[in-house]
This record gives sequence, C-alpha cells and structure tokens, in this order.
Amino acid sequence: MRLALLGCGTVGQEVVRLLHEQSADLAARIGAPLEIAGIAVRRLGRDRGDLPVDEELFTTDALGLIKRDDVDVVIEVVGGIEPARSWLVEALHAGKSVVTANKALLAEDGVALHEAAAEGGGDLYYEASVAGAIPLLRPLRESLHGDRINRVTGIVNGTTNFILSAMDATGAGFAEALDEATALGYAEADPTADIEGFDAAAKAAILASLAFHTRVGAADVHREGITEVTAADVASAQAMGCTIKLLCIAARGVDPTGRETVSVRVHPAMIPRSHPLASVGDAFNAVFVEADAAGQLMFYGQGAGGAPTASAVLGDVVAVSRNRLAGVRAASESSYADLAVRPMGEALTRYHVSLDVADRPGVLASVAGVFARHDVSIATVRQGSAGGSPGRDGAELVIVTHVAPDAALAATVDELRGLEIVRSVTSVLRVEGDA
Amino acid sequence: MRLALLGCGTVGQEVVRLLHEQSADLAARIGAPLEIAGIAVRRLGRDRGDLPVDEELFTTDALGLIKRDDVDVVIEVVGGIEPARSWLVEALHAGKSVVTANKALLAEDGVALHEAAAEGGGDLYYEASVAGAIPLLRPLRESLHGDRINRVTGIVNGTTNFILSAMDATGAGFAEALDEATALGYAEADPTADIEGFDAAAKAAILASLAFHTRVGAADVHREGITEVTAADVASAQAMGCTIKLLCIAARGVDPTGRETVSVRVHPAMIPRSHPLASVGDAFNAVFVEADAAGQLMFYGQGAGGAPTASAVLGDVVAVSRNRLAGVRAASESSYADLAVRPMGEALTRYHVSLDVADRPGVLASVAGVFARHDVSIATVRQGSAGGSPGRDGAELVIVTHVAPDAALAATVDELRGLEIVRSVTSVLRVEGDA
Repeated sequence: MRLALLGCGTVGQEVVRLLHEQSADLAARIGAPLEIAGIAVRRLGRDRGDLPVDEELFTTDALGLIKRDDVDVVIEVVGGIEPARSWLVEALHAGKSVVTANKALLAEDGVALHEAAAEGGGDLYYEASVAGAIPLLRPLRESLHGDRINRVTGIVNGTTNFILSAMDATGAGFAEALDEATALGYAEADPTADIEGFDAAAKAAILASLAFHTRVGAADVHREGITEVTAADVASAQAMGCTIKLLCIAARGVDPTGRETVSVRVHPAMIPRSHPLASVGDAFNAVFVEADAAGQLMFYGQGAGGAPTASAVLGDVVAVSRNRLAGVRAASESSYADLAVRPMGEALTRYHVSLDVADRPGVLASVAGVFARHDVSIATVRQGSAGGSPGRDGAELVIVTHVAPDAALAATVDELRGLEIVRSVTSVLRVEGDA
Repeated sequence: MRLALLGCGTVGQEVVRLLHEQSADLAARIGAPLEIAGIAVRRLGRDRGDLPVDEELFTTDALGLIKRDDVDVVIEVVGGIEPARSWLVEALHAGKSVVTANKALLAEDGVALHEAAAEGGGDLYYEASVAGAIPLLRPLRESLHGDRINRVTGIVNGTTNFILSAMDATGAGFAEALDEATALGYAEADPTADIEGFDAAAKAAILASLAFHTRVGAADVHREGITEVTAADVASAQAMGCTIKLLCIAARGVDPTGRETVSVRVHPAMIPRSHPLASVGDAFNAVFVEADAAGQLMFYGQGAGGAPTASAVLGDVVAVSRNRLAGVRAASESSYADLAVRPMGEALTRYHVSLDVADRPGVLASVAGVFARHDVSIATVRQGSAGGSPGRDGAELVIVTHVAPDAALAATVDELRGLEIVRSVTSVLRVEGDA
C-alpha cells in the first residue's frame, strides 16, 4: 500500500514518524506494509528534524506525485482551500483513496469531494478534521446510524477553550488571556480563525452534516467569536453556577410550518458547572451528543497538536488501506434527510442578561414589560447592588429567560439598551444545557 | 434485509420499537428496508406491551428461525452462555451476520465466535456488549488503529457506579447504598454479577482484546468487587481529594524478562477528583483511553438500559446490513500481538493504606521499615489523630505508595496487620490516575 503525503509540517512530520515507529504493527493490522511513495512540500531542503525517510522522497511536484500509478492513498495535511481542493479532486477522480485533516475545505466544498470520491471509487476519510484525535466521525457515521440524533454540542476549538478556561480560573480579561495563550503556543500569531469562531464553524458544518444526514456548509453556520466576552461576563456566569464555553451547536427542530429543520451555530454560552462539557479544560475538546435512544454521550480528548492529529490520520489510513485491499469502499456520506437550515433568528435559545439599572420603584415592571412585548418568558430574576460598584446609587438586575426565538431575544436586549432606566447592559450571554 | 431477533425482553422490545419508528430512515441509510423475519422467545403469548409487530412472527423455535434461508442477520439479546453460543455458532457457520449484546459469551468464548464468523463469511458485531450506547468498540477497532494504546481505564458497570456515587455523596455504607440502588431499579434482585465485578470483568476482557490485539478471556481478568468498600474508605478517599470507583484497567507493560505483556483487572480504586473519570456519576459509564499519539481520550454515556442498548444494537445492524448489500465483511478481529497476560501480583499498582497505630515513638520507623523490606517506596505519609475516635489514645497513619508490584504491596499490608503497634488497618485501596 503506497502513500503520497501532501505537506510535511507539524502533522505531516508526526505522520512520517508514526508510520516509521509502528510499521510492523500497521502492516499486521492492515495485512500489507505501508510505504511512503513521496512527500510533496513547498520547498525542498528545509530543516524537518531527523525524519526517518529518504531525502529523495521529497518533491515540490504535488500533482505529479498524486498522478503516479503506484500511489494508492493520498494523505493531505496542507490545509486551506487551494491548492488542496484541486489536488484532492484530482486524486479522487484518479481512484485514489484520500485521508485529509482539512476542515476548511470540507466545510467549504465537501460536496464536490464526496462526488469525486463516488466517481473515482476511492474512499474519502477525514477523522482528523474535527476534534483532532477524538474518534468522532466514525461513531457519528456508523455507530449511531440506528438512532436519531437530536443535538450535538461541542467544544471543538482548543485555543478558545484555553482562553476561556484561563479567564474562568483567574478572572483575567480576554486580551490578557489571549496573550497568555499566545505566549504558551496555544494561539497562533494571527489568532483570527480561532477567536472569531471560523475554525469552530467549519467543524460545526462537518458535524451537522454527519449527524443530520444533510449538507451543511460553513456559510450556513451562524458564527460569533469570543472577543466580546468580558471578565464581567465570566463573573456573571460564576454567580449563576456556570462557566462560559465557545460552543458549536447543531440542533434538530421544527419550523413554524411544521417542517423539520436543523440550526447550526457557534457562539459563546454559559453552561452549568454540572454539565459534562463544563469540566473540559485547557485546550481539550469534547463533543456532547443527544440521541433518541442512546441518550447522552460525550467524546473527549485532544483536539489539536501534531501527534493527536497524526493518530487520527493514521487510523483513517489503516481503514482506507484495508478497504482497498478488500476491493471495497466505505459507505458514502448520506444526505438523504436534506433538512432545511434554519436562520439564527429562528433558533431557539435562552439568554442571560445583566442590567445596571436605576434603583427606584417601577424599574422591574418596565424591564419585565419589554420582555413581555417580545413574547419572551422570564425564567428567573435576581436583583442585587450594582455589580462591582458598591456604594453607587443603582441596582443590578440579572434575568434568565426561557427558550425563545433568538431574534426575539436580541430585539428584547436592543430595546432594553434604549430604556432610560437602564444605565447599561453589563452582560448578555446565551445559556445552554439544563442545570 | 431480513432479521431474526433472538430474545424479546427489555432490549429486544426496544429494538423492535426502533426498527418500526425509524424504518424509513434506516432504509435510507442502508439502501434497503429492514424487515423482521421472526422473533424467537421462550414462551409465546407473554405480555410484551403493544409491540408493533405481527403476533405470527413469534416462535419458540430459535434454531429453526436461524436456519431459514430468508434470514440475513441474527440479532441476539438473550444473554448468558447457552443456548446463545450454539445459536450464534450455527448462525455464523450458515453465513449469517450476527449482532449481539452478549458480553458474557464474548468474554468466555469470543475466539470460537470469531472463528465461526471467519468460516461462514458473515460479520460479528457487538458494540452493545460493552458500555451500552457508548460507541467504543468501533473507535478502538478502527479509529485508533494507527496508534498504540497503552492503557484503558473504564467505569463499565452502572450499578456499582450508582452505589459508589451514593456512598460518596451521602456517606452511606455499602449495604445501605445497595438497598437504595435496588429500590430505584439500578440493582437486580440478585446483584452478584454487578457488585462482585463479574460483569465488569467480562467487559474488561473484551476491551483488552480489542485495545491490545490479543485474546483476553474473562478468566484472565483479576477481579475484585465493591462489597468490601466501607464508609471509612470513602472518607479516606475524600480526605485525599479522591473518589472511589470500580475500575476496569487494561494496561500494557513489560515483564522482568523484557517481554511485552498486558495486565487486565477489575477492582475498586481511588482516583483524584480532577480525573475525567471522577465526575462520571450515577449509573453512567465512561472509558478513558491513553494512546501514544492521541494522548488522553474519554468516551462517556449510558451503559445500560433498553433504549441505549438497542441504539447500539441497531447501529451494528445498519453496519452489517450495508456490508451484506455490498457483498463484503468487516475486517476481522486481529490478535496478532498475542501479548502475555500478566498475573495480578506482577501488575504495577499504587496503594493507599490507613492505619490505626499506637501513639508512641518509633511507630513510623517500624511501619516504614515494613514497606522498605518489601521494596515498596512511600510517596506520602500523613499523621493525624485516630480517625473517628477523637480523644482515644492512638494515631492515624495514612500512607500512599509509589507504584510497585501488586504482590509486594499486598505482602506489605499483610505484614503490617501483624505488627504489634498497628491496632488495625482501617482502609486499603489501590490508587489510580495521576493527580
């Protein structure tokens, strides 16, 4: 079984190392040895540590490598949309099996890749694209196929989870926690893709597609990052017995016309500390699945890093190699359900709102009236002295709502901001997970 | 795709219900409808609720049903060794695919079943046999095949986890917590299989076989139940920032001759509250996996119950049905590694020992001397007043060791019991998981 490796960065180097260290085990598990046919890189001669491979295997001609007749499996760990897309489409059309860790490409253009795989007759595996080493796609693709998944809630970005965990533990603000994450190597020099939720949104699209047998692309995902999360938000969450996580949520629902829908979103939210996702700390990832018969499931592990990602890549390489030796291919993705993706405004969410209000009679009535006008039902109200400003004239109102359409909740907050008696809206966060 | 269902108890009834409710979805996922060809039961005419199946499908002739030409897949949810073994061997030899939830049979005689499957050319799937609805076998069998698993630590018995969680929460003794579990339906009238660890040991054998590509049977598993766990043990654990869980542990190791081995055991142990397994409460199950490249992974969910088990069974039914339609079978189990199973005495463990000792000079030196004679290194010693007996003349010594061969630790405790200055050994527990 001959492999073409596209890319030789952190993950690629770990793939090479694991292939070397485990070669006897891998051969036994597959029934044939794995051999590297070539490694495509952008520049030759770059220092890649003391990789246990022949220098002659490196090439800058990725397309030439892919097209070689003696290549069975193409492993792509380059990332990004182009040239990865052209390479993989070429490989799949040529009947090669493909293993990729490229979440951005899958979320952007997974349909084209799946079609190319179906035409060429090879496999397309991508376990490493979501939540790194955590075996997640296979359970969703296969183990839960006899069940009906209702909701997937995940912490799928390690950088933001590290930052939010640090804010929760130390009371630091976002900027300070981001600096720490950067210093420790948990955040990249340009952290935009992580902190603005782009990375999580791509993974949410992949998870939703699998869980609901429906094509969901990155553009279908409502996305909010964590840059607006403040130390005051974290304190509010703690006062509620909650912690703040950047969640990706894909939920089955029914729209007002009775049609089944799916809503897919990424945003920070408060969850109760008793929720299994609350204790997922540092840069770990976890995905919580709720299904009709199986009930609650959670998958937990390292979401990034060279070795964990390489582990997931190699698991896929073993699977597609076995399939090729047996002359079969895995069941293709199914998107038969074809559920409509619901806009964020219609998604059902709950809000936690902290207000700094004037301390005088009638304030609560006015505030409650705004919620009522938008048809939003209030679950709890807590009144205290103005947060962080002891001795100041004023009061703090903390309101948690029942579920309502997100647009109604957002409109409620907008109107609250305009009330004369509301001095400021100190914290607005969605709330997920039953206490 | 025609199914024979053997057994129609709690799980079987849920399987029938799910097949009915999800029939359109299942047909779309498989590419062909699923149909029940027959249901074998011990007695006809028993009340099975209002199952959505024709009364004529029921039969008491299981073997006749299995042998019918129009049966493709045999689902076994009867449990126990015989007649399940004969039935499944018959079915597999006849080329049928088999889906079973029977952990006892797999642990006792998995080899015979796998061989029969290989001869007949059908699939043998058993996701439901370990940790109910948690997709676990497929990740171990497939997703982690490119990695090297070093250790699997699981909470795989819901009944004992419920009991230990109750003892931890309320300070109750074992008998009282067992009564509560029985009253709430978490423990069976005869709870022996659960509380003595037989159930967990069968699952440990299955997990170890998969994780280490080695045949491990139930008889290879060292087994201790939770009946000896006392309220004092629980209090000792809490004082150490730990909680007590019944763990199944399968660990790779090297014996004194340098040969790779695996040790498989089930026993109660203290784990730090910071460990991901510590927060697995009530009757939930979880399995913690440590692999070379993937690092730490955890799988969490419901380990028992009709619907969760049926979900796992149906996931397998979808998989084997797809395989049959495609004319292929899944990769068979591999046991190429064939590691030696190490006796418990050689397993490396850590002990926590609480002693009620005379309060006089030289006591610590004598006690420490016993550990030294057995070549057991002490990690921490804490000295306090006699536990639970304020005002009494005496002192409490709490000792936690470094890892050592289990036999050396057991011999140390035996010798301590004989020391004149040791009034009693109030608690002995193994310790797992780094703090």
